[in-house]
Amino acid sequence: MSTIDLNKPILDYNDRLAAENHALLREKGVFVLDLMASPGAGKTSLILATIDALRDRYNIAVIEGDIASDVDAAKVKDYGIPAVQINTGGSCHLESNMIRRALDILDLDALDLIIIENVGNLVCPTEFFLGENAKVMILSVPEGDDKPLKYPNIFQISRAVILNKLDTLPVFDFNRAAFDDAVRRLNPQAPIFPLSATTGEGVQTWITWLSEQIERCDG
Amino acid sequence: MSTIDLNKPILDYNDRLAAENHALLREKGVFVLDLMASPGAGKTSLILATIDALRDRYNIAVIEGDIASDVDAAKVKDYGIPAVQINTGGSCHLESNMIRRALDILDLDALDLIIIENVGNLVCPTEFFLGENAKVMILSVPEGDDKPLKYPNIFQISRAVILNKLDTLPVFDFNRAAFDDAVRRLNPQAPIFPLSATTGEGVQTWITWLSEQIERCDG
Repeated sequence: MSTIDLNKPILDYNDRLAAENHALLREKGVFVLDLMASPGAGKTSLILATIDALRDRYNIAVIEGDIASDVDAAKVKDYGIPAVQINTGGSCHLESNMIRRALDILDLDALDLIIIENVGNLVCPTEFFLGENAKVMILSVPEGDDKPLKYPNIFQISRAVILNKLDTLPVFDFNRAAFDDAVRRLNPQAPIFPLSATTGEGVQTWITWLSEQIERCDG
Repeated sequence: MSTIDLNKPILDYNDRLAAENHALLREKGVFVLDLMASPGAGKTSLILATIDALRDRYNIAVIEGDIASDVDAAKVKDYGIPAVQINTGGSCHLESNMIRRALDILDLDALDLIIIENVGNLVCPTEFFLGENAKVMILSVPEGDDKPLKYPNIFQISRAVILNKLDTLPVFDFNRAAFDDAVRRLNPQAPIFPLSATTGEGVQTWITWLSEQIERCDG
């Protein structure tokens, strides 16, 4: 496949800049989460729930990645949280040079946590290191329990797997045991957090884990 | 952005092979539909519903595109319909050379309709012509009514837009009027088919439209 050879220099360039982002963020003591999911899986809703839970303890900012529009950044700003919207044009994922420009805009000295909302896509964001401390993915119940089989890479590289829209389980034919089993086969270390970002069910377990990651990074 | 220049030769090569696929399929009198959607929007369910409705009138085959696994092709084969599974490895979309290899396997003289199920992705498949007669997209209610704003390209290039999982409207905060309005602004010509592939509601309107496209192409 010619694709692989042609992408190599892009990935090299991306990784070099990502390492620079990572060094800068480490120096500033900022923990960075790269949140990945399909379109509509609930990334923005989980970000808002996470802000609600952690805003008293940490200074938070959000970097929003979308092909077009600034509706998500507007929602975050309505929460009184700094947000930078990146419009990728046609690109199906964020790259480290886009994050670099967003970091230039944010006041890193004042921040503890940056949440990056990647472009809605279960495939492409997995290949691009942005300088984050952890990649975390969301799958939502309506997407179906067979997604680990079809999109294994994202499940393999995620530090944690969130199963969102848990409140809609009665409406969909979703086999929790099959899903958990498939995730564990791909990634035995990753905790699975079943939750509903809108009702709040299960969110506290996710928040506890995320806080531990932030504290560990800080120490 | 270096991405654009590096992708150019891939796209040129893809389009050349796609045109060859198209000429071959036209000669054989086969109508080809490229079905695109997010992971879990209901592509396979709609394909099975479409097979149910049209198998008495047309000889149908399915080409399944997935990063990994053959669960979808197995479902189609259980219906007694020829299916070819393409595993793209890491690639986030199908390309015309993959379709070429699938066409080599299928008995084109015996077929009237090929449905291609693209990789679950609202972004990348939009840039790759495969040789199809029409690209059609599915958005499902749980994904949210703001998706035309965030992923405009796929709405612009689709010949028709299917709104699936209509039976879950009571569970989700989905504004039908806002969605229809956003789609029409991006693509005034495309019909919108609200339906539920699992309950069957609205499927007949989609089938009537698809049959018209097939007959028109045949004439």
